[in-house]
Amino acid sequence: MYWYLIGTAAALLTTFGFVPQIIKMRRTKSSRDVSLATLFQFSAGVILWTLYGLHIEDVIIIAANVISFLILSMAIVFYYYYREK
Amino acid sequence: MYWYLIGTAAALLTTFGFVPQIIKMRRTKSSRDVSLATLFQFSAGVILWTLYGLHIEDVIIIAANVISFLILSMAIVFYYYYREK
Repeated sequence: MYWYLIGTAAALLTTFGFVPQIIKMRRTKSSRDVSLATLFQFSAGVILWTLYGLHIEDVIIIAANVISFLILSMAIVFYYYYREK
Repeated sequence: MYWYLIGTAAALLTTFGFVPQIIKMRRTKSSRDVSLATLFQFSAGVILWTLYGLHIEDVIIIAANVISFLILSMAIVFYYYYREK
């Protein structure tokens, strides 16, 4: 149970790690200094982590990375929306 | 062996996910739009992931998150160095 909580906290922190970045882009209405390569690299990574999670049958890894992918997709949309015209 | 490669590729992509962001901060000499909260949230997350990896004895998760933490620390240093004066 203790380790389940550690894993869950870890998953929540990294899964929602780009939420503050999304909020900041919305607030400043700018994504100039944000790295699009970082967002795409993470997206590719979490897709592979999801596959690896399926293989080792770890539900925390699977769930965390699927949600991560959705948040990264949102960050990429915001990046393009707020990039310098 | 196949799954080992998937896990390794996943680990490499996310572990080094903030490298393009560091490169971009260096190039533009600005970290204005970068979210410091995202960097700190990821740092806390990878510390917990490392503990979880130790528990489930998964060497990929442990190694990936230790290196991730070092890269995030570097990104935080660059954030402060290049933030708007």
